[in-house]
Amino acid sequence: MREIFYPRSVAVIGVSPKPDNLGRNIVANLVEYGFDGVVNAVGPSGGMIETRRIYHTVSGIPDAVDLAVIMTPARTVPGILEECGQKGVRWAIIETAGFREYGEEGRQLEQQLVEIADRHQIRFVGPNCIGAISMENGFCVPFPRLHKFIKPGDVSMVSQSGGVGMSVLNLMSNEGIGLNKFVSVGNMLNIDAEDVLEYLIEDPGTELIFLYLESIRDGQKLMHVARTSTKPILAFKSNIGNLGNTIALSHTASLTSDDKVVDAAFEQAGIIRIHDATTLGNNMKILRLPPMKGKNLAIISRSGGHAVIAADSCELSGFQLAELPEEFLREIEKHFRASVINLTNPLDLGDLFDLNVYAQIVEQTLQLDSIDGVVFLHTAISTTENESSRRLLEHIISLVQQTGKPVAYYISASAEEVNYLKQHYDFPIFTQVVETIRALEINQQYCKISKRLQAGEAIEQFPVEKAKAAALIQTARQEQRDLLLSEAIAVLGHYGIPTVSGQVALTVEEAQQAAEQMGYPVAIKIIADQISHKSDVGGVQLNLRTPGAVKDAFEDMISRIEKLYPDEKLDGVLVQPMVTGGRELILGGRQDPQFGPVVVVGLGGIFVEIIGQTVVRVAPISRRLAEEMVFSLSGSQILRGARGHRASDVDSVIESLQRLSQLLVDFPEIAELDINPLRVLPEGEGSLALDARIILNKE
Amino acid sequence: MREIFYPRSVAVIGVSPKPDNLGRNIVANLVEYGFDGVVNAVGPSGGMIETRRIYHTVSGIPDAVDLAVIMTPARTVPGILEECGQKGVRWAIIETAGFREYGEEGRQLEQQLVEIADRHQIRFVGPNCIGAISMENGFCVPFPRLHKFIKPGDVSMVSQSGGVGMSVLNLMSNEGIGLNKFVSVGNMLNIDAEDVLEYLIEDPGTELIFLYLESIRDGQKLMHVARTSTKPILAFKSNIGNLGNTIALSHTASLTSDDKVVDAAFEQAGIIRIHDATTLGNNMKILRLPPMKGKNLAIISRSGGHAVIAADSCELSGFQLAELPEEFLREIEKHFRASVINLTNPLDLGDLFDLNVYAQIVEQTLQLDSIDGVVFLHTAISTTENESSRRLLEHIISLVQQTGKPVAYYISASAEEVNYLKQHYDFPIFTQVVETIRALEINQQYCKISKRLQAGEAIEQFPVEKAKAAALIQTARQEQRDLLLSEAIAVLGHYGIPTVSGQVALTVEEAQQAAEQMGYPVAIKIIADQISHKSDVGGVQLNLRTPGAVKDAFEDMISRIEKLYPDEKLDGVLVQPMVTGGRELILGGRQDPQFGPVVVVGLGGIFVEIIGQTVVRVAPISRRLAEEMVFSLSGSQILRGARGHRASDVDSVIESLQRLSQLLVDFPEIAELDINPLRVLPEGEGSLALDARIILNKE
Repeated sequence: MREIFYPRSVAVIGVSPKPDNLGRNIVANLVEYGFDGVVNAVGPSGGMIETRRIYHTVSGIPDAVDLAVIMTPARTVPGILEECGQKGVRWAIIETAGFREYGEEGRQLEQQLVEIADRHQIRFVGPNCIGAISMENGFCVPFPRLHKFIKPGDVSMVSQSGGVGMSVLNLMSNEGIGLNKFVSVGNMLNIDAEDVLEYLIEDPGTELIFLYLESIRDGQKLMHVARTSTKPILAFKSNIGNLGNTIALSHTASLTSDDKVVDAAFEQAGIIRIHDATTLGNNMKILRLPPMKGKNLAIISRSGGHAVIAADSCELSGFQLAELPEEFLREIEKHFRASVINLTNPLDLGDLFDLNVYAQIVEQTLQLDSIDGVVFLHTAISTTENESSRRLLEHIISLVQQTGKPVAYYISASAEEVNYLKQHYDFPIFTQVVETIRALEINQQYCKISKRLQAGEAIEQFPVEKAKAAALIQTARQEQRDLLLSEAIAVLGHYGIPTVSGQVALTVEEAQQAAEQMGYPVAIKIIADQISHKSDVGGVQLNLRTPGAVKDAFEDMISRIEKLYPDEKLDGVLVQPMVTGGRELILGGRQDPQFGPVVVVGLGGIFVEIIGQTVVRVAPISRRLAEEMVFSLSGSQILRGARGHRASDVDSVIESLQRLSQLLVDFPEIAELDINPLRVLPEGEGSLALDARIILNKE
Repeated sequence: MREIFYPRSVAVIGVSPKPDNLGRNIVANLVEYGFDGVVNAVGPSGGMIETRRIYHTVSGIPDAVDLAVIMTPARTVPGILEECGQKGVRWAIIETAGFREYGEEGRQLEQQLVEIADRHQIRFVGPNCIGAISMENGFCVPFPRLHKFIKPGDVSMVSQSGGVGMSVLNLMSNEGIGLNKFVSVGNMLNIDAEDVLEYLIEDPGTELIFLYLESIRDGQKLMHVARTSTKPILAFKSNIGNLGNTIALSHTASLTSDDKVVDAAFEQAGIIRIHDATTLGNNMKILRLPPMKGKNLAIISRSGGHAVIAADSCELSGFQLAELPEEFLREIEKHFRASVINLTNPLDLGDLFDLNVYAQIVEQTLQLDSIDGVVFLHTAISTTENESSRRLLEHIISLVQQTGKPVAYYISASAEEVNYLKQHYDFPIFTQVVETIRALEINQQYCKISKRLQAGEAIEQFPVEKAKAAALIQTARQEQRDLLLSEAIAVLGHYGIPTVSGQVALTVEEAQQAAEQMGYPVAIKIIADQISHKSDVGGVQLNLRTPGAVKDAFEDMISRIEKLYPDEKLDGVLVQPMVTGGRELILGGRQDPQFGPVVVVGLGGIFVEIIGQTVVRVAPISRRLAEEMVFSLSGSQILRGARGHRASDVDSVIESLQRLSQLLVDFPEIAELDINPLRVLPEGEGSLALDARIILNKE
C-alpha cells in the first residue's frame, strides 16, 4: 500500500495540452507540491505541456513506472489498465467517473477492471474518486487544480466522497491542522477504506486518522483493524437515512436500526464517531494533545464570564473542578493586587495583566498531582498584546511537552491574530469556550477507551450443548421454516439460558395432563410456524387455574387460529407453569448485514413498547460489555433495587446476554432472535426466558 | 434610553496623557469610529492628548454634556456622579470595576451611586462593564483600544460580561455578521438587561438581538418584553452550575431545577436559547434570512457526499425532502449530459459545471409552491471558479429577496475566498453542511413560534372559590405552618381540581364510622404539620377492607408516628375511599425566584422516581400549553391509548393543570405544591387528586 503514496515514478494518463484538461491539473499539482519522484505525462494526442513531453501510450514511456494515475473516459480505462499491466505497473489510482454509478454499462466496465487487475496483480484505488495526497513527498494527484492551501502535519484521511474530502481539507487548513496523507477511495473496487486504514495505522507519518464513510464494506474487518490502532480514529458515517425502512420480523430487529449498530460497533472498536464538521475540527485538535488521564481539571480564565461558561460546561461534561491546595493559592495570590476576587477553581485572573505571570500560574498548576489537565481561557485585550500573547502560547506549548498533560488553549482575539496562531504553531487553538470543554471530554474518554482496548478483554466461552442446538436448527432449515416455540426454548436451554420448562400438548387432554403434572396456574401458547405475533391473534393465554380453564382456553385458541389461518399447520400448544413476580426484560439478537451478530437488551413493558429504549452491542461480548449493556439502560436502577424496589438478579441477566452472544456467533444462520420476556427474579433467584422466537436465514 | 447610544455631547472622565491610560483609549476609539458628536476629555491631571485639552473637572466643560463615560477609581465615582448631576448630565456609563464584586466597601459605594442617580434623575449603565458601541453614529466607548474590526449591520447585543461580549463581537466579525449596537451592562445597578432589550425591540436599526445573561433580575419582565418582539431574540444563559443545590421540600421542587425553568420561560417567550458559540453564529446568520414557512425543503448539491450528509440531517431535523414535480425535473434534465444520475431531491448536480445553470435551477426550485426553502451546497472546485461563484451568490441573494424564501448557502472553498464572501456580502455564508440544516431548523421553528406569539393566547379563568382557599391559607400562615393534608385537598377542591373526598377522624371509632359510610376498601393517611414524606414513616395505609383492619392500621400508625415524632401534634387521620385503576401522574408547582409560579407534570411511578422526567412551564398557562406539557412527556402515548392500553382521561389532566396554574398565580404565598398521585381514570371518567401537599412561604 505504501506505493500508493510513495511511488518513485508516476504516469499520469489522460493529459492533453488543452487548457481545461484535468490530467494537466494533476501534473501541475505534482509540480507545485514538489513531488520527489519522476512524472510522466501520457495522452493519445501527444504534444507537450510546460516543457514536458506527452507520451502517446504508457508503453512508450522509456523508464519503469510504479504507479499510474488514470483520468480518461470510462470506456478507455480497461484497455489502459491492461497496457499498464503489460508494462509492469503494479499500482494505480483511477479517478475517472462513469462506472457503476452510471448504470449497467459502467458495472460491466468495473468487472473488466477487476479481472485485469487480478491477472496482472495490480492494486488500485477508485474508480470515481479524486485521488490521493501525501504531503511528506509532495505527491498530489487530485484532478482539481490545488494550490498549497494546507500545511504538512500528522493527520491522515480516507474519504468515500471526493467533495466531502475536499471540504474537510478546507476545514483542516482553516483550523491550522496539518495533513499527512489523503485518499479518496471512490467505488472501492479493489482497495477499500479498511485496507487504507490498516496501512495508516502502521504509517510512521500518521498520528491521527479520519474516515468519511457512506457505507461499510466489511464491518468486522473494520472493527478488527481499528482495535489494533494506538492512534485515535475519528469517523463520520453518513447515509443513515430511511432509518427503519427495512422489514423487521422480530421486536429485536425493529429496535436495532443499522445506525444504532454502527454506533455500538464504533464504540466497541474505539472509533470516535462524529456527526458534524465543527466537532470534527475540535476533536482533531484536541486529540493531538497528550491524553488527559483523569477527570480533574483546572480552569484559568482572564474573563469572569468565560470562567462561568466553562464551569457550566465542566458540569455537563463530568469534569471535576479540583480544589486547589491552600499553599498553592497563597503562592498565586502574591501576584494579585490586594483584596481582589476570591481565588478558587475556575481561577479568575481578574486584575492581573502580566502575561509572564500567567505562564507561571499554568506551570504551577500543571505540577499539581491533583490536576490532570488545564483549560486556559485567554481574552486578548487589544492588538498591542499580540506579541506577549504569542510568547505565552510558546511557553504553554513547552509546558505541555514537559509535563505530558493537556492544556486546551482558548483565545478570543481578532480573526487575523487567531489565523496567525493557527498557521504558525503546531498546537491546537480553540476559539469557543463550550466547544473546548466538550472536546477535552473526548480526549479524556479516548484515553480511557484506548487503555482498555490495549489491555484486551477475554470473551468467556461457556460449555454448551452446541450439537443439540445445531440439530434443531438444521432440521428447521431443511424444512424451510423457522424454529417452533418449543424448539426455540430448547435451543436457549442448550446454551444454558434458563427457560421455563414446558410440555407440548396436541389435545385438550394432553394439555390438562401437563397442567396437572406441573401444577396450576399454567400458561398455554400456540405453536405454529407462520404466526409472528402470537399474542396479537389470541395465541397466548395466561393464568389458567383449573382443568376447565385449560380446556376453554385450548379450544378457543385453536378455533380462533384456524379461522384466521385456515392453511396453517398447527403443531399443538406449549403448556408452561406460570411464573410471577420480578421484572421483565427483553433480550434479543440479529445478524447485521454490516457487522454480523448483534445482541440487544431492553427493559420490558412500556419502556420497550412506547419509549423503544434498548442497548445494542456487536457480538461476541465480554462480561464487562454485558454489564455495561444492562447498566446503561435508563431506568436500570430499579434492577439494582433503587427507591425501595427489591433488587433483581442482574447477574443472571448478564450471563444470559453472554450466552446469547455465544449462540449468535456459533449460528450465523439465526437471522433474528427474541426472548420476550425474560423474567428477572429477585437477587439470587435467577431469571427465566418465558417466551422465545428464532427466525432463520432462509438462503 | 436612546441617549445611551446617541448622545450629542460626551464627557470621558478619567483621561490622562499617560500612554497606558484607559480613558485615553476611550477617546481614541470615539475618534477612530468617527463619532458624530462632541467629545470632552476630563481628568484631574489636566494637560492634553492628541491636540485635545483635558478638563480638570466636569463642571469645567464649557458646553452642555448629554452623557458621561466614567473610568476612574471606584472610590472617586460617587463624587464624580454627583458633579455630573449638578452639571445637568442625565446619562452615564460607569465602566470602573471594584464595586460589590470586591466586597462590602464596594457595596456601600454602589448604594451611594443609586442615591445620587435617584436625586439627579440620572440613568446609568454599569458599573463594572466595558461600555457600549453604536455603529451607526460611531459611538464606541469600551476601554480596550479597538480598531475597526467589525462591519456595521443590524444585529445588537446586550452582555452581562465584557469578556464574553468581546468574544461574541470577534465571532460576528469572523462570520461577517454586522453589528448595530453593543452594550455591556455590568452590575446592572440602574439600567438592566431587560431595559436595554425593551429599547432594542423598538430600535429601528436593530433586526436581531443577542443577550448574554449570567443572572435574570426580573424573569416575568423579561418574558413580557420578549413576547412583544417581532425581532428574533437569541440568548445564552450561563451560570447553570450547582444544579439542584437548593434545598427542596417537595417532589416538584426537586424535579424542576432553576435551569429547566429558564428553558421553559425562554421557549414560552419565544427567546431562542443557545448553548455554544458555534450555534450562536449559525443562528445569527440563519435568522437574517426570510422565514421558512413550512417543512418542505429542496437540497441542491454539487457533491454527492454533501447531498447524502444533508439528507441525513434533514431526517433528524424533521424536514421533508419534497418530491419535485415530474415536469420540473424534465426541464432541469435538459441541462445535464445524457444518461446521468437519477434526478431527485436532493438534486445532485453531478457533471453539470455551468454556474449560470445552477442559478436557473435555484430560481425554478424557489418558484415551486411545494418548496418552502432551499439548501444550496456549493463545492468550489478551484480558485479559477471564484468569479463565477460570486456571481452565483449575487444571483441567489436577489432570488431570496424576490421570493421571500430562504436559501441556506453552503460553500466549501479556500479560507481566503470564504472570508471574502463573508465580508463583502450581506448574506449568510455557511461552511458546514450539518450545521447549516440545524440552523435552518431554527429559522423554521422561530417562524412558527413568532406567528403564535403574535396571535396571542387566551388564558382561561375558571370560576373558583378563591375566598375559601384564601381563608385556609391565611389561617395556616398565621399559625406559621404549612397546610395540613386535609386542608391541601380542600384548597384543590375549591379550585375545581377533583379530589377524593375524605373525612378527618381523630379516633379509631371515627375512622371506622367514616369507612362504613364511604364503603370499603379505604385508605388512611396521617395528618400532621411537620411530616414531609408520610409514606416513608408509615403514615399511609392503603386497601383496608374491614373495620378491624382500620383499627389495626390506625393504632399502628399513631404509635409509630408518636415514637418517631414525640413532639409532633397529630391532627388525626384522613379516611378516603380507595381508588384503583387508571394511571398515576404527578402534578405540582412552585414559586421560582426568577420567574414566579411554575407548574409541572410528570408520569408517576418509576418514570418520575428513577428517570426524573417531568415537563415544567411558567404560569399562567393556556390550554394549548397545558396540552403541550402532557403530550411532550415521553411515554405519554400510553395516556392516549397506544399499543393496546386503554386511553386515559387526558382532558381532565389538562384542565387540572390550568386550574393549578390559576391557583399558583392567585397565591404567590404557595412556595411548593405537590399532587402525588393524580390518578387518571379511563377516558370520560376524569381524574382524582389522591394526595396533596402545600408548603407556604413563611416570610
